[in-house]
Amino acid sequence: MILCDIGNTNAHLLRDGEFVIESLEKFLAAKFNGEVYYICVNDSLRATLKMRKNFTDLESFIKFDTSYKGMGIDRICACKSIREGIVVDAGSAITVDVMSDGKHQGGFILPGLRAYKEVYGSISPRLDFDMNREVLLSSLPKNTQDAISFAILKSLILMIHNSSEGKSIYFTGGDGEYLSSFFENGIFDKMVVFKTLLSTVEELKKGKFKC
Amino acid sequence: MILCDIGNTNAHLLRDGEFVIESLEKFLAAKFNGEVYYICVNDSLRATLKMRKNFTDLESFIKFDTSYKGMGIDRICACKSIREGIVVDAGSAITVDVMSDGKHQGGFILPGLRAYKEVYGSISPRLDFDMNREVLLSSLPKNTQDAISFAILKSLILMIHNSSEGKSIYFTGGDGEYLSSFFENGIFDKMVVFKTLLSTVEELKKGKFKC
Repeated sequence: MILCDIGNTNAHLLRDGEFVIESLEKFLAAKFNGEVYYICVNDSLRATLKMRKNFTDLESFIKFDTSYKGMGIDRICACKSIREGIVVDAGSAITVDVMSDGKHQGGFILPGLRAYKEVYGSISPRLDFDMNREVLLSSLPKNTQDAISFAILKSLILMIHNSSEGKSIYFTGGDGEYLSSFFENGIFDKMVVFKTLLSTVEELKKGKFKC
Repeated sequence: MILCDIGNTNAHLLRDGEFVIESLEKFLAAKFNGEVYYICVNDSLRATLKMRKNFTDLESFIKFDTSYKGMGIDRICACKSIREGIVVDAGSAITVDVMSDGKHQGGFILPGLRAYKEVYGSISPRLDFDMNREVLLSSLPKNTQDAISFAILKSLILMIHNSSEGKSIYFTGGDGEYLSSFFENGIFDKMVVFKTLLSTVEELKKGKFKC
């Protein structure tokens, strides 16, 4: 059995207990034997995936109680597996959600690290720099690359810190491990989304849902 | 006499004591009688502007002591006119600089409001929303448009607040007035850049510089 969380840039797979991140191109070109259970926030792939006989879209089986309108299924899965704390999914976009006593309190969406980098280049060629992931946050920058890197990283940290109020912060997604390293109360957990996928497949196999 | 601060999206003009913001297209198509003194951070326009006989580029006459490498001339002009405080130029990009006792301490660069809006659309069509400038900052968002607007606005506010340490914050640029409204210690001053341009022209006319 393979579980997939398909995003806008990559597909995250859990295959025989092993995590794999694949580009969408590679993921779509691959042949999968056996059952594949997936969620997908990338609308352009929906029709293609539906045509695959061994692929099952789990979205309609996952229920989540929130007053938030338009929450992506990946975010829902991540939040559903956390009772208390902050859930940060750091991929193409960085979603930050607050869970309190098993209830979703709302959340917000920041650009992902790669998107941030690209926006600067689109403003001016003078701002087209790779992010310096080692930038010092304790003193004000003195060159353009650091001025951009500092702004990206510090604004993400301040936004996440501001919403955490001392609670545990669960990070997942491609940049989750890097971002978690800036927080004492940060926990990197690749399983956050997959926990919900796993429990949904278990319920599905037990015949809880009528297909 | 006309003073111009030419950016990546617009040109800001001070003409007979009146401020005008013009798109670059309109600015380049306009005919100007009399002397035009300008600064320009848009490298693609440099050659065109140099060919205009009544146009003078002030950049080489403006001296600013800082260890920061690669600081744009618009940022230099804004900082040069402030002895103590934070200088925020909110245009295509948002530059934030700290001045203390007339010395530049460093600074950082955030994307401008329009650039922020566009980056979300580039991540996914599901995130392609206009910014809600009235978004509530006191509670967590409950829909995608607010989730994006909250993230943009709050991250800018936290970053500026974090660097201010209670000092006065001088805002300029197209979104300067809007952003200044979120700070008790915020001052919107369209003249921040032009003060330096004016004093440089005065010195130039007094013959302080050898042309």
